[in-house]
Amino acid sequence: MNPQERSIDKASQEMLSRMTAAGQENAWDRLAAQLPQCGFGKQGICCRICTMGPCRISKKSPLGVCGANADTIVARNFLRAVAAGTSAHSDHGRGVAEVFLEAAKGDVKDYGIKDRVKLFKLAKEFGVETKDRSVNDIATDVGKIAVEEFGKHEGTQLMARRAPAVRQALWKKFDITPRAIDREVVEALHRSTMGVDQDYKNLIMHACRTALADGWGGSMLATELQDILFGTPYPGKGEVNLGVLKKDEVNIVVHGHEPILSEMIVAAAQDGELLKQAQSVGAKGINVAGMCCTANELLSRHGIPVAGNFLSQELAVATGAVDVMAVDVQCVMEGLAQVARCYHTKLITTVDKARITGVEHISMDEKNVLNTAKKIVKMGIENYKNRGEVYIPNEKQTAVMGFTHESINYILGGHYRASYRPLNDNIINGRIRGVVGIVGCSNPKVQQDFTHTTLAKELIKRDVLVLTPVVQQSHAANRG
Amino acid sequence: MNPQERSIDKASQEMLSRMTAAGQENAWDRLAAQLPQCGFGKQGICCRICTMGPCRISKKSPLGVCGANADTIVARNFLRAVAAGTSAHSDHGRGVAEVFLEAAKGDVKDYGIKDRVKLFKLAKEFGVETKDRSVNDIATDVGKIAVEEFGKHEGTQLMARRAPAVRQALWKKFDITPRAIDREVVEALHRSTMGVDQDYKNLIMHACRTALADGWGGSMLATELQDILFGTPYPGKGEVNLGVLKKDEVNIVVHGHEPILSEMIVAAAQDGELLKQAQSVGAKGINVAGMCCTANELLSRHGIPVAGNFLSQELAVATGAVDVMAVDVQCVMEGLAQVARCYHTKLITTVDKARITGVEHISMDEKNVLNTAKKIVKMGIENYKNRGEVYIPNEKQTAVMGFTHESINYILGGHYRASYRPLNDNIINGRIRGVVGIVGCSNPKVQQDFTHTTLAKELIKRDVLVLTPVVQQSHAANRG
Repeated sequence: MNPQERSIDKASQEMLSRMTAAGQENAWDRLAAQLPQCGFGKQGICCRICTMGPCRISKKSPLGVCGANADTIVARNFLRAVAAGTSAHSDHGRGVAEVFLEAAKGDVKDYGIKDRVKLFKLAKEFGVETKDRSVNDIATDVGKIAVEEFGKHEGTQLMARRAPAVRQALWKKFDITPRAIDREVVEALHRSTMGVDQDYKNLIMHACRTALADGWGGSMLATELQDILFGTPYPGKGEVNLGVLKKDEVNIVVHGHEPILSEMIVAAAQDGELLKQAQSVGAKGINVAGMCCTANELLSRHGIPVAGNFLSQELAVATGAVDVMAVDVQCVMEGLAQVARCYHTKLITTVDKARITGVEHISMDEKNVLNTAKKIVKMGIENYKNRGEVYIPNEKQTAVMGFTHESINYILGGHYRASYRPLNDNIINGRIRGVVGIVGCSNPKVQQDFTHTTLAKELIKRDVLVLTPVVQQSHAANRG
Repeated sequence: MNPQERSIDKASQEMLSRMTAAGQENAWDRLAAQLPQCGFGKQGICCRICTMGPCRISKKSPLGVCGANADTIVARNFLRAVAAGTSAHSDHGRGVAEVFLEAAKGDVKDYGIKDRVKLFKLAKEFGVETKDRSVNDIATDVGKIAVEEFGKHEGTQLMARRAPAVRQALWKKFDITPRAIDREVVEALHRSTMGVDQDYKNLIMHACRTALADGWGGSMLATELQDILFGTPYPGKGEVNLGVLKKDEVNIVVHGHEPILSEMIVAAAQDGELLKQAQSVGAKGINVAGMCCTANELLSRHGIPVAGNFLSQELAVATGAVDVMAVDVQCVMEGLAQVARCYHTKLITTVDKARITGVEHISMDEKNVLNTAKKIVKMGIENYKNRGEVYIPNEKQTAVMGFTHESINYILGGHYRASYRPLNDNIINGRIRGVVGIVGCSNPKVQQDFTHTTLAKELIKRDVLVLTPVVQQSHAANRG
């Protein structure tokens, strides 16, 4: 396949050509080597749940060894995929909740409460007393409730109460109001174990409950806490694509999903001492760029440019301009280690539960994250002199992003009459046909960015409002 | 394959022949239809974790699309298998803990505290005050702590403190002392997601922690609570194999893993009213027999006979003598539904999270389990008249079982000097070379019962003490 078939993006196309010319492998090449992929696996009718298998459903063998049919096997596999995606989000959410609680208690000095309005709103929702109390005391109580949402033994998800009453009634009717997130995951694995739940409808109902625990539980909670801790985004301009990398500056790329470390890397890159050091090695400055979901967090809060989406990660390294790539969790390709070895780029893992064999690990010290961040930025500065040939595609786009519901309310109604009213009116009168969120990773099986942009264009053409992260990159699609 | 190659057990061989003659399919036939099984899956080098796959490792394609190598893929698959096994045990443990707490509070009338000595011991371990308090109050506090072990946000597993100090120090050194069980499972799924943990050593360390949360956490806790609730087993004689089914009595087979309902079915089968009803339909009595782990629980506590192990479940139905088979969770083959349709057997699922498409479901009412149990026994009585041809193999063995550590202590030291001393002395002086526990399911890939019995014989021959459930059937082996 030529680069034009692999991506619609010019920057990606250029880098793909260069990598091919240099004989360097990337995700597309590895996919090509994997073809043809297993048809049973693709259809969800391969079962590896117990050791009597692997079983594959066909006309010759319509049942697994235990007797499970295609319905059961597909439903079990699907439920496990939902459980895994929920776990990834929740574990991220739990991490944020823990840092939030520590920051509230004053145990983590580098973070504070940035959005008090949102804190008070959440406190009210959680039934936390706010009158005559310090911000930190209120936040501590909110944090304690938040960390309990993941494992509490009784009750259902507090955030799920935000759903419309009709929706909540429906959940209740089907007994799928989500309980503690961790519990739903464990029950999902239990039910999908050989010889337990073997009614696809029953399995799918629990997949719904688990998914609700994810979306209405952990993910929404994590967003709220991150906004309180790092600030609620408001619309601002930003730049996107590999062209945001700078030839004459130290380039630090932050990649992954959690903003905890990258927030501090942004701060460290503005440190006077480090800027001087950068100049002393001949660089004009320190340029932080984001990759994947971490990028969204930084762009929407600080206007930090986005170097690319999931499939761009290896291409960014191949520019030869990335002095450090610091990764946290999720969507970090193991293939990066191999590409980084061909260039001067220092690839660094930072979270203890996400390491890569043979890659340098700097364990993020949660009590002193700024220190870890400075160490990483310094490594980038020191590595600047080791650059070989540099090729940065001259491609970048500008975008406005940061449309939170708070900002939309403000934009549509002003400070005193903040509301969705103009939006609602236009939905009611039929001029706006609906609102659609497009999220999901790029996948080398389809031309990079083609699906997302085509879908967005077709929807907009039909008077549908489209919401999407600048990085067409989110949680669900590539999760197993 | 002929029946002799499929099982070393004569009763199984007879039933296998009969099923083949009748053209009825069982697990062995389904396995035969599945052969050859996928080599990638068997080796653990097939990855279906994200939708860029399925990826299969070979010389031609040594890396997955994300760049994961065989080490990462095998470790991720293994970690997910450990997480699933842990989930199955934990969800069972949680269920027991919930019933325990309700029984302690007096909300569940059918259960009470049977082993007060064990309750007081556990209360002491948990730091629960026992002086001048009622048994129910103590049990309530113990129950509250127990349910929290699954999801608590802080601290490590209380039961793990039972491990020798040296062992605990080792866990601490490697940072694998297990925290809340549910949390370890969720972290396992997160870390094994595409692009997160990609260092096989790191992944395997978390598999260790998750396994410790299972064994030293949920499973051990469940055993303690079940003993307090249903009584701690002491050695007694029991009968095992398909020959325990009775031609002239109503046969109720209980199958699965949780003793909550089956304990009550045993009680219901002794109910005078139901016994009279049984006689009125021409049966001489009501015979309850166990299958799989549920069988172990009932044999060791009540001397209830065991009809067979995991691979015997379909064979039992094929005797034509099972009037009701009531199943709870785990190791219940979906194939049972198909076999049951060929006979008069009423197959009944009883736990809401474990249903089978097309099978009658009687939802266990936890507040009034005896009622549910009576309903099921009654169904068996009513179904007695519908029997067709009955063939029960004339095979049964006697066994003594129920060797808990309490009973071994008593047997070796008496009431006042209960101890392991004679055992320890003989291990120290070298006459006993060790103690080995054999647990694990039968799997049609190997001749039924051959591995377990051969292993036991060879170990005993070498002066090793062997501990094993009568049903060679346990949790780990068939779990994905």
